[in-house]
Amino acid sequence: MQKFIRIDMTTLQATTMDVPEKYAGLGGRALTSNFVNDEVNPTCHALGKNNKLIFAPGLLSGTSAPNSGRMSVGGKSPLTGTIKECNTGGSSSQKLAKMGIKAFVIEGMPKGDKFYIIKIDMNGVTIDEAPAEILGGCGNYDAIKILGEKYGTHVGIAIAGPAGEYRLPSANISFKDPDGNIRSAGRGGLGAVLGSKKVKAIIIDDKGAGKVPIANPEAFSAAAKVFAKAILDHPVSGQGLASYGTGVLVNILNEAGGLPSYNFSKGRVDHSDNISGETINATIAERGGDGKVSHGCHPGCLMRCSQWYPDKQGKYITSGFEYETIWGLGADAGIDDLDAIAYIDRAMDDVGVDSIEVAVAVATAMEGGLIPWGDGKAVLEIVKDIAKPTHIARIIASGTTVVGKVCGLYRVPVVKDQAIPAYDPRAVKGIGLTYATTTMGADHTAGYCISGNILKIGGYIDPLKKDGQIEYARAMQIGTAAVDSTGLCLFVYFGIADNPGGYQALIDMINAQYGINLTANDVDELGKSVLRVERDFNKRAGFTNAHDRLPEFMEYEPIEPHNVVWDFTPEEIDEVMNF
Amino acid sequence: MQKFIRIDMTTLQATTMDVPEKYAGLGGRALTSNFVNDEVNPTCHALGKNNKLIFAPGLLSGTSAPNSGRMSVGGKSPLTGTIKECNTGGSSSQKLAKMGIKAFVIEGMPKGDKFYIIKIDMNGVTIDEAPAEILGGCGNYDAIKILGEKYGTHVGIAIAGPAGEYRLPSANISFKDPDGNIRSAGRGGLGAVLGSKKVKAIIIDDKGAGKVPIANPEAFSAAAKVFAKAILDHPVSGQGLASYGTGVLVNILNEAGGLPSYNFSKGRVDHSDNISGETINATIAERGGDGKVSHGCHPGCLMRCSQWYPDKQGKYITSGFEYETIWGLGADAGIDDLDAIAYIDRAMDDVGVDSIEVAVAVATAMEGGLIPWGDGKAVLEIVKDIAKPTHIARIIASGTTVVGKVCGLYRVPVVKDQAIPAYDPRAVKGIGLTYATTTMGADHTAGYCISGNILKIGGYIDPLKKDGQIEYARAMQIGTAAVDSTGLCLFVYFGIADNPGGYQALIDMINAQYGINLTANDVDELGKSVLRVERDFNKRAGFTNAHDRLPEFMEYEPIEPHNVVWDFTPEEIDEVMNF
Repeated sequence: MQKFIRIDMTTLQATTMDVPEKYAGLGGRALTSNFVNDEVNPTCHALGKNNKLIFAPGLLSGTSAPNSGRMSVGGKSPLTGTIKECNTGGSSSQKLAKMGIKAFVIEGMPKGDKFYIIKIDMNGVTIDEAPAEILGGCGNYDAIKILGEKYGTHVGIAIAGPAGEYRLPSANISFKDPDGNIRSAGRGGLGAVLGSKKVKAIIIDDKGAGKVPIANPEAFSAAAKVFAKAILDHPVSGQGLASYGTGVLVNILNEAGGLPSYNFSKGRVDHSDNISGETINATIAERGGDGKVSHGCHPGCLMRCSQWYPDKQGKYITSGFEYETIWGLGADAGIDDLDAIAYIDRAMDDVGVDSIEVAVAVATAMEGGLIPWGDGKAVLEIVKDIAKPTHIARIIASGTTVVGKVCGLYRVPVVKDQAIPAYDPRAVKGIGLTYATTTMGADHTAGYCISGNILKIGGYIDPLKKDGQIEYARAMQIGTAAVDSTGLCLFVYFGIADNPGGYQALIDMINAQYGINLTANDVDELGKSVLRVERDFNKRAGFTNAHDRLPEFMEYEPIEPHNVVWDFTPEEIDEVMNF
Repeated sequence: MQKFIRIDMTTLQATTMDVPEKYAGLGGRALTSNFVNDEVNPTCHALGKNNKLIFAPGLLSGTSAPNSGRMSVGGKSPLTGTIKECNTGGSSSQKLAKMGIKAFVIEGMPKGDKFYIIKIDMNGVTIDEAPAEILGGCGNYDAIKILGEKYGTHVGIAIAGPAGEYRLPSANISFKDPDGNIRSAGRGGLGAVLGSKKVKAIIIDDKGAGKVPIANPEAFSAAAKVFAKAILDHPVSGQGLASYGTGVLVNILNEAGGLPSYNFSKGRVDHSDNISGETINATIAERGGDGKVSHGCHPGCLMRCSQWYPDKQGKYITSGFEYETIWGLGADAGIDDLDAIAYIDRAMDDVGVDSIEVAVAVATAMEGGLIPWGDGKAVLEIVKDIAKPTHIARIIASGTTVVGKVCGLYRVPVVKDQAIPAYDPRAVKGIGLTYATTTMGADHTAGYCISGNILKIGGYIDPLKKDGQIEYARAMQIGTAAVDSTGLCLFVYFGIADNPGGYQALIDMINAQYGINLTANDVDELGKSVLRVERDFNKRAGFTNAHDRLPEFMEYEPIEPHNVVWDFTPEEIDEVMNF
């Protein structure tokens, strides 16, 4: 019987119970979003006692299904005010699943200023005061090391960095990955919610845990093999990501004219070779990289997209060095030096902030005159200073909307107060519809239309034309909501989009694990139900179609090199979520 | 025939036309709100070319009606995202009315960084480049002096201070008053809109203007006399305001336990005598005050509530030294020294910011640890630095919501991102309903329930009880929307609330001026129609009932000394605007 744990930070007591009937068939995002919609008052203050954080492994997490170790974290976002599901790698999801824990919830809020550490193991939950040495500005790298010394290096760790302690709106929740480094539930400021509940870290110790029960092990194993082959057979998920990481997209988007540059004023930079995945690959090869090149964000990953980026002496700087971060600092903020970007990426992980929100905030602050364009040194200092925090660090760590306010800017690239990521919606129109309509605020991972618009995976829809984009953005968001409920990495889509057998194998794994008979239609309905639940929350929180809009400047400023504007009408945009 | 002027800042051309038929019977807020709802796209960016600013005298402005010189300014607010009507004293409203100008509109936006000065006189409109000496941090006091030297001291001036130039969300539009000092269209950041349109100042030169035509001069004169007597006969409007200014409310609210103190954590301060209207009065008497004590914000004012506050040498520091400012700095931020508060008030006028928004932002920043509690010197430096602006000055001038974000605060006293003013809604429940439901974001002037809850003017409704408050807040908002359309100062209400003849005289003046036959019911309908129009705009901008809510902490934190919480249910709140 799976367990459901409620941790009440008001009383500092935890209760372990059976999984409520209504959540029995749910996992990952389906579970977190249903729970938040059921139990969190949509008009509550995100940093108050009425918000709740829920951590849930996906349906397949903890099994031998490839790439199934993603964990969903849900709550009301202090950045956007919407419902939020953020998913992350790291080792915690699989450990929780193996421990038989369907989800745990953090609710309430203690009195006083003390911070706590929650430890979840096979004996239950303990809540202890956090040691002073990891508080008040201690970086995540050091804190994870200190916690590893205390709790053992085998444990999973989720942690609020300095930004989370200070409840800043871009604060992420950082997760220890298999190498002891950092992965993030990055977007929407859920680290600030963890900080508001005075939880510094969560230790997941699965010592003594068994295996995830599989109803039909042979069928599961057979399906997992087909699924693994689908992933490995595709050139992107089987080879490209491991070799070049997601940074491979720099040149692709630059070539497509959809690489937003200098605060979304151009679609292409001259220095893309300086910051490309190919250059990352060559640099790692040249410098050695502690013997590593790519690795997975969680055990069982076949794609290993995370690049292990070293300094000139071959010593580790950062990993999980993603395209979106490199884009934000390298193109949008015009920092043309990979090493500078890598050090900033490390600093962002260390203070615990969303690297998309902060990179876009930096670029916006450059437009506002607070930081010189392309000044990597200045940016590194500011990001490090989030640990103090200085006034400018507070501004930047509060995200792009706040930067827009304090600089009195018109050109503020956000939807629902969340920064628009690395693909310009004027030149890649499908992703623009996702940004506008997702329940999460601007988020490429909510319906990654880059696949069909740019990568020509799962079909091709001309990125510069409106034709077919509405149906495509709708389908991608529905499918993503389903995949986000499985614990699978979103990139498995590359392997199954053009391989019906791969997609069927995904469904077969779930059926074999739970002894059920889902069809493709059921999975589609699951995705739709998740979006409906999320939209219900947002509606009750005060969101309307008027919020499903891109920044006005994109309607008026053509972006080079294609000189295209954002030209979907409000009525067309509103069709995306009409299902 | 009255004129309607459109000034297009994109082309730097102005067009003078007949008043559009649909606006013929409207003035002040009724005109600005109808115009904004008709012509401004509610989802536009407030700092973009699609926003428009409209300046409109009231229906009675320019006549001999007492206290009729208020001017309404309308647009979409960059602070709240709602429609905004802000009204102000100064001499411009009466000058425009005498020039036969029903309203002027500023629309579009020029290319480039140049700022302009718009001059409106009997020959039309001229647009010139602004002189460098009044730009880039020049304070309003100096700028008004320089403009007076150039255009003559008789002209009316509206100006964007440094905060408006920098488009900061708390920027007001400052207006020269009859003494050459400063009055403000304070709330909602319309100064940032003026700045976004690159308008530094507007000169209203009424040389050669005639009189406002009156259809029935004798009836008008008779009604005006009755109206004047009603104002002068009431102890508050006839004596109290002139003697003590609005600062008289400090002790009254402190006594009532409704003076929000230390960021709304208490309802009373120990040092109220240090900051009271009585102390202001005694200080002015002792110091001399350049021979002045109280004066009016516009010619023809009978109440003269504006105190002329001098330094120890008797030299002018500030005027329009209002209760809400003194409360914000003195009680909410705990600065217990009137001189310190007066210098900060002057600095706020000089940089051109809303003294309520900034005072509350300061108190919130004190809770967030950015400024020591009660430190007037630190606050003065920060407010002065808005002219530069430093990082902390940018934060403060961006308003209370932004301070809440950068400090990760839960206790953020705003509604629709606008700071809650000087009357605690837990202990004065009627005003809480106004804050929650007004179309403007938290605003006491939108339905001043203090009258019946505290001052016992126009009846008495126990401030600590819910009974009768819904109907009262509704009636006060409807009445206010009508009064805001006449050009009359809101304080005329004190004179007419318990004097039916005074109210009838108000209606008689309008009828005599325009040769019409309005009834009290028509005036009521006018008020309702204004609120409906404003709510229509807000709804299309994405606002719902979910935004008509006070901050959550007020539901949970009882306020001393009465230990009361905010206990209206959402359903009850939503009844206020059900008419």
